[in-house]
Amino acid sequence: MMLNIKPHERVDDIQCRGYQLIQNPEVFCFGIDAVLLAHYTKIVRQNTQILDIGTGTGIVPILMHGVYNKGNYTGIDIQEDMVEMANRSVLLNKIEQDVCIKCVDIKDFKQHFKSEQFDVITCNPPYMKPSAGLKNENCSKTIARHEVACTLEDIICASKFLLKEKGKLVLIHRAHRLVDILYFMRQYKIEPKRMQMIYPKVNKAPTMVLVEGVKYANAELRVDAPLIVYNEDSTYTKDIENIYSEIY
Amino acid sequence: MMLNIKPHERVDDIQCRGYQLIQNPEVFCFGIDAVLLAHYTKIVRQNTQILDIGTGTGIVPILMHGVYNKGNYTGIDIQEDMVEMANRSVLLNKIEQDVCIKCVDIKDFKQHFKSEQFDVITCNPPYMKPSAGLKNENCSKTIARHEVACTLEDIICASKFLLKEKGKLVLIHRAHRLVDILYFMRQYKIEPKRMQMIYPKVNKAPTMVLVEGVKYANAELRVDAPLIVYNEDSTYTKDIENIYSEIY
Repeated sequence: MMLNIKPHERVDDIQCRGYQLIQNPEVFCFGIDAVLLAHYTKIVRQNTQILDIGTGTGIVPILMHGVYNKGNYTGIDIQEDMVEMANRSVLLNKIEQDVCIKCVDIKDFKQHFKSEQFDVITCNPPYMKPSAGLKNENCSKTIARHEVACTLEDIICASKFLLKEKGKLVLIHRAHRLVDILYFMRQYKIEPKRMQMIYPKVNKAPTMVLVEGVKYANAELRVDAPLIVYNEDSTYTKDIENIYSEIY
Repeated sequence: MMLNIKPHERVDDIQCRGYQLIQNPEVFCFGIDAVLLAHYTKIVRQNTQILDIGTGTGIVPILMHGVYNKGNYTGIDIQEDMVEMANRSVLLNKIEQDVCIKCVDIKDFKQHFKSEQFDVITCNPPYMKPSAGLKNENCSKTIARHEVACTLEDIICASKFLLKEKGKLVLIHRAHRLVDILYFMRQYKIEPKRMQMIYPKVNKAPTMVLVEGVKYANAELRVDAPLIVYNEDSTYTKDIENIYSEIY
């Protein structure tokens, strides 16, 4: 097909079943978070209904579709230009049967979706609280990085409504937000069941954390072995190499 | 002084300023948890008021007194025989000016203590929920290991009353109870500020977690570098060696 690529955009091979992704490096390019989130969220049933909140370029649903070759994906984002770009990536990969990106404000979830519509929800939320740090003047960047369009609580509150019983919410977030994640998940009856801390090196504080909550599950958290990203010599660890090799 | 040692008891050198501890190996002997809790809870001011809840043999206050040589310690336990034994250890070390062990049910905290009486509260709580696993028939062991005499929520609720503003609650607990710890701390306005996961080996799931909450603090968790206990060859890691050498 003819590619409709706009100025400042580029097309990257995400090295998963030949899938490609349109990105705008001036706004946001996907990183290791999306790969770790896609890897942590296992999809096993063919007809699994998956929602990705704040999907941006669509990397998480596109990558998960490539990795698991199962499931029906909806990605939502509040930014129209991102949604339009993500849908071009979907068409480019000819996966529009299984992946659909929509412009939705997650705070309006009841207008767009039915209760208990999804088996799995993924989210790589904006990292920073509105008050923390300087806001980038570029609006798309600000929305992707700061909790200006929605808060972590908005996402978890919506997930409670949208998930089926025993449905899963899987988040990757900065480690320092762990209390907020676990507290709001429990408050909204999405019990945290699995968690993994991600340390840049074995002797460093963790930067990120993966958490999986299950709606209406009983209280019992399984904490996984640490995921360490780099060896002392700054090469990727075997664990990270394995994740990339399972995905790519 | 003449030692009054009962059958089945033994006197151990805890290798900290020559301090000794009376223990009954049939009931409970202190382990690495007490050492890690004492090390994580830094005492810097001379007149710090410290409470240890569920103190058992008194190991945590006795060890902390030995390590920091500062502070005024109260240890409480619901078991009279443990309190009596712990007080003999206090006398043995001639630290009764600074360390006092009392028989108190933490659920009756308002009968025994004033509001905002303590700067620091430490606790190595019973690990198991009453329903989880087989209860040991020995009553002392059951109380020390299961939440039969008090729950985690009882401890955190009492701490809110007993801590001064900006006072600290420091817990060591099993990693799978992390959600309960963080949830109840926030619910009772003791915001989790610092946390460390303890992994037996670098490629294993964590067994324990250290959490420090601060009463009325703002929300911002610092997660420390992982504490890994054993090297691949099952010798202690440098981190653990350093903790023992700082203490002993």
